[in-house]
Amino acid sequence: MNKKIYVVKASGDKEPFNKFKIISSLVRAGTPIDIAEEVADEVEEKVYNGISTREIYNICLKILIKKYPRFAAKYDLKRSIMILGPSGFPFEKFFANILREYGYDVENNLIFKGKCVEHEIDVFAKKNGKRIMIECKHHSEPGIYVDLKVVLYTYARFLDLSSYFNEVWVVSNTRFSKEAVRYGKCMNVKLIGWRHPKDMSLEKMIEDKKLYPITILKSVKYDVIKRLVEKNIILVRDLWDKSIEEISIETGLSYRIVEKILNEAIAILKI
Amino acid sequence: MNKKIYVVKASGDKEPFNKFKIISSLVRAGTPIDIAEEVADEVEEKVYNGISTREIYNICLKILIKKYPRFAAKYDLKRSIMILGPSGFPFEKFFANILREYGYDVENNLIFKGKCVEHEIDVFAKKNGKRIMIECKHHSEPGIYVDLKVVLYTYARFLDLSSYFNEVWVVSNTRFSKEAVRYGKCMNVKLIGWRHPKDMSLEKMIEDKKLYPITILKSVKYDVIKRLVEKNIILVRDLWDKSIEEISIETGLSYRIVEKILNEAIAILKI
Repeated sequence: MNKKIYVVKASGDKEPFNKFKIISSLVRAGTPIDIAEEVADEVEEKVYNGISTREIYNICLKILIKKYPRFAAKYDLKRSIMILGPSGFPFEKFFANILREYGYDVENNLIFKGKCVEHEIDVFAKKNGKRIMIECKHHSEPGIYVDLKVVLYTYARFLDLSSYFNEVWVVSNTRFSKEAVRYGKCMNVKLIGWRHPKDMSLEKMIEDKKLYPITILKSVKYDVIKRLVEKNIILVRDLWDKSIEEISIETGLSYRIVEKILNEAIAILKI
Repeated sequence: MNKKIYVVKASGDKEPFNKFKIISSLVRAGTPIDIAEEVADEVEEKVYNGISTREIYNICLKILIKKYPRFAAKYDLKRSIMILGPSGFPFEKFFANILREYGYDVENNLIFKGKCVEHEIDVFAKKNGKRIMIECKHHSEPGIYVDLKVVLYTYARFLDLSSYFNEVWVVSNTRFSKEAVRYGKCMNVKLIGWRHPKDMSLEKMIEDKKLYPITILKSVKYDVIKRLVEKNIILVRDLWDKSIEEISIETGLSYRIVEKILNEAIAILKI
């Protein structure tokens, strides 16, 4: 190509198209380098002047879904969690389901009477005699940090509820500010978020056991996803214990759509 | 008047004009009942169909400023504090000045190294051996409450700084949620806000010593106020120690404007 191709970023700024950026974003999301290069080559053929970064992302994702669905899931994990809605499909329910797969006894949104006041606790988890109070912080936009104040008020709440719990966590789909991390370490408040901590980050917990949220499915529209969620199918693997018939009856979705969903789920989970 | 007069509220809803509402809002703000009735009569002559509540408020205020400036200040106090800006004229500086008049040693925006992390403290006040950490919460809109989380994180911060302070306050220009009040009482976090607590609410602290913010002045535009604030004239009474000449030289404002300001200040403080 001789013509210079410019890409429009989310900020509205333009920059020259750069194939290496695509390769590195794919590799960062766990795609093997050879596949990343193959995808980037294909994307390069499809870009046009004035294309948005969002469109490039979507083209990448489509190629991956078609050819390497297993890596598509990883590539799109962050966004799948971002679109967990505040209504109907809350992050705390998603995280509770993850913990369940890790052998925790879990309950959502319980109210506890503290020394001073009542508190609603997002997730109450139990394992090996530990009783854990978990505050969940979901952000629908990237780039937002969980700040010190969140960890401070969670700790104060934990103190007020000290007769019920012996451990406290703050869990988020984004990152934590440096101050928040320092305070968490110092006061023994465990922080789990995006790429933090390295040995037990949110995406590691998800990927190690393939606990992808149902929002990762790309073959169906969002209102179909919502119907699944209403029936408590929150992780892709929740589809697994059921037959096409069962899912169709439970959700009212047609056989054709349920089959489409299951095919994508199989590809993602590679079972 | 035979024609029905409707008033447009901030919400966009309409309601029939009701003189009694004006009287009661004036009385609530400390205007004697006979003056309130007189003002409401005058307002009634000026209202027209489709007038906004905001305009009615402004008419009331103008009448008060002209005839009873002392009550004008009280009537407009809440709004004068609302318009304290985040930049240049922060609420924490205003509150620090109030405390100074109550005999406290006060400093703004100091950073303290806590057990775990550093914290910036809005106001650090000392009196009779008490060392007080004060968190300020300013809202620019009415109807917002300071919620439990604010009091929780302030308490956790106080714990982290326990080697410096032996008392902790949360101060706001609005009210506190019931939960916040309950927790504050229980954990000995003093809460000072609008009409809370009765014996030492923000407006009582202000009115008892006539510590009106400079934003209460109505005879000049906001950029004039800003110039005064830049020169650390934050309370109306800060004008008092200076001559017209001094104020004019310090601020670069003309004699005519400074005179206008001082005349209004005299009326408000009734000295």
